[in-house]
Amino acid sequence: MELWFTENQTENVKFSMKVKGHVFSGKSDFQKIDIIDTYEFGRVLVIDGWTMVTEKDEFIYHEMITHVALGVNPNIKRALVIGGGDGGTVRELTGFPTIEEIHMVEIDPVVVQASKDYLSYTSCKLNDPRVTVYYEDGIKYIKDKENYYDLIIVDSTDPIGPGEGLFSEAFYNDCYKALTEEGIMVNQCESPYYPNNAREMKRAYNKIGKIFPICKAYQYNMPTYASGHWLFGFASKKYDPINDFKGFKFKEKLENTKYYNEEIHKGAFALPNYVLKQLEK
Amino acid sequence: MELWFTENQTENVKFSMKVKGHVFSGKSDFQKIDIIDTYEFGRVLVIDGWTMVTEKDEFIYHEMITHVALGVNPNIKRALVIGGGDGGTVRELTGFPTIEEIHMVEIDPVVVQASKDYLSYTSCKLNDPRVTVYYEDGIKYIKDKENYYDLIIVDSTDPIGPGEGLFSEAFYNDCYKALTEEGIMVNQCESPYYPNNAREMKRAYNKIGKIFPICKAYQYNMPTYASGHWLFGFASKKYDPINDFKGFKFKEKLENTKYYNEEIHKGAFALPNYVLKQLEK
Repeated sequence: MELWFTENQTENVKFSMKVKGHVFSGKSDFQKIDIIDTYEFGRVLVIDGWTMVTEKDEFIYHEMITHVALGVNPNIKRALVIGGGDGGTVRELTGFPTIEEIHMVEIDPVVVQASKDYLSYTSCKLNDPRVTVYYEDGIKYIKDKENYYDLIIVDSTDPIGPGEGLFSEAFYNDCYKALTEEGIMVNQCESPYYPNNAREMKRAYNKIGKIFPICKAYQYNMPTYASGHWLFGFASKKYDPINDFKGFKFKEKLENTKYYNEEIHKGAFALPNYVLKQLEK
Repeated sequence: MELWFTENQTENVKFSMKVKGHVFSGKSDFQKIDIIDTYEFGRVLVIDGWTMVTEKDEFIYHEMITHVALGVNPNIKRALVIGGGDGGTVRELTGFPTIEEIHMVEIDPVVVQASKDYLSYTSCKLNDPRVTVYYEDGIKYIKDKENYYDLIIVDSTDPIGPGEGLFSEAFYNDCYKALTEEGIMVNQCESPYYPNNAREMKRAYNKIGKIFPICKAYQYNMPTYASGHWLFGFASKKYDPINDFKGFKFKEKLENTKYYNEEIHKGAFALPNYVLKQLEK
């Protein structure tokens, strides 16, 4: 018998991967969590029917959500990850020796436990001594923080279910407040291609643009996400991602990247006209 | 009843689009040609079960296969398109007033006729007075041409079936000979993500690199092709695609592009490390 997992990328588009086995299935207070083993993509984390992380291409997402900010400010010391329960973003941050403190705020302990049990490729650095995991709602966590973090990464699911509040203006305001003067915020900013994703991309980008003096978007190729064409937002209090790019200090780190490099850093901010048009104020 | 068309992107990956109707079905001496009307992507051309062109995103492919060369040499006068029977590449070329002669060599008249009948969005400029269509094998056509074309675009299907010879060293050699000293060749160069595509990408790129003094690759996001992450090859006798980029002369043309712009021109040549590694000699 053949097993296939199918993601309904839109009402009219399906993406299917052939499955070796269903490794984990759980339901938390927030969402349905599944881990499958697939022929093409290795182990895959699926939340509420949406592909979150695959062993084959998670490096693209996780390098791009972290390295761009570190290329602009190589002196980041205190980093906050909101969401990202699989641990991949934290794993990348631990690779930078200058970072002293990594806080991860994940609302759902079931995601973290399942990742620790079955996705060692992303969760492998959650025990790094610089890492503290808080099982809390990121929206509440951030409220009383002030001038503390040099970097906030909003590593959220789509703005439905528990991820919804992480796309709100009040939340972005709190992130601004929680950042130092050197502060950078990077957020999962959806995709320009299918209308449902594009609507959320525009909304998030516009909200952030009202709060942060510098607000840009950069793209990456993520084959297992709908359309493969996805964006991160880059917002900061004073650094421009291109003009203030320092050239990469961590040569050793850079030799080990599989996606990110200096050319990609700059090239990723070059957006197609149809995307620019959607992001116009 | 729901109708779905499914492309088997690999043995273990399927991509499916919901279909309104089956508009055309034909079999030529070379291949099976279908045109479907879909909810998400509009009219779609399918050859031997592979998605070739969709109404929603063909602009990405066709702008990127043409504009990059024109940005480097805005004085291109004679252009040859090998393959490209849907007419989209020719349509883009006719938008440049400096081009005097456009030859399209397509082996399969059934593709061209079906495109004329059902895909007016790509075939709309095949009657431009500067365009001549030859129904011939591109491999034979190119053999006796010398120092004639300023631009050759190899707009081929994958290297299986009739497209196979368009990935051979002998063919690239003939293209080199057919080009003027200002000559540029752009070719459909597959994708780095799935192993089958990546193997062909590497082979084509290595062959071209042996013949042309300048051989580069640039990427574009094509959501309806497997993985969404695809490359074109840029080969030339003397022009470097970045250092010799002229800044775009055709401002009016450029205002109408939906994907290509000057930043994209440069950014597209920034390739991820895992792609660069595959392209190393």
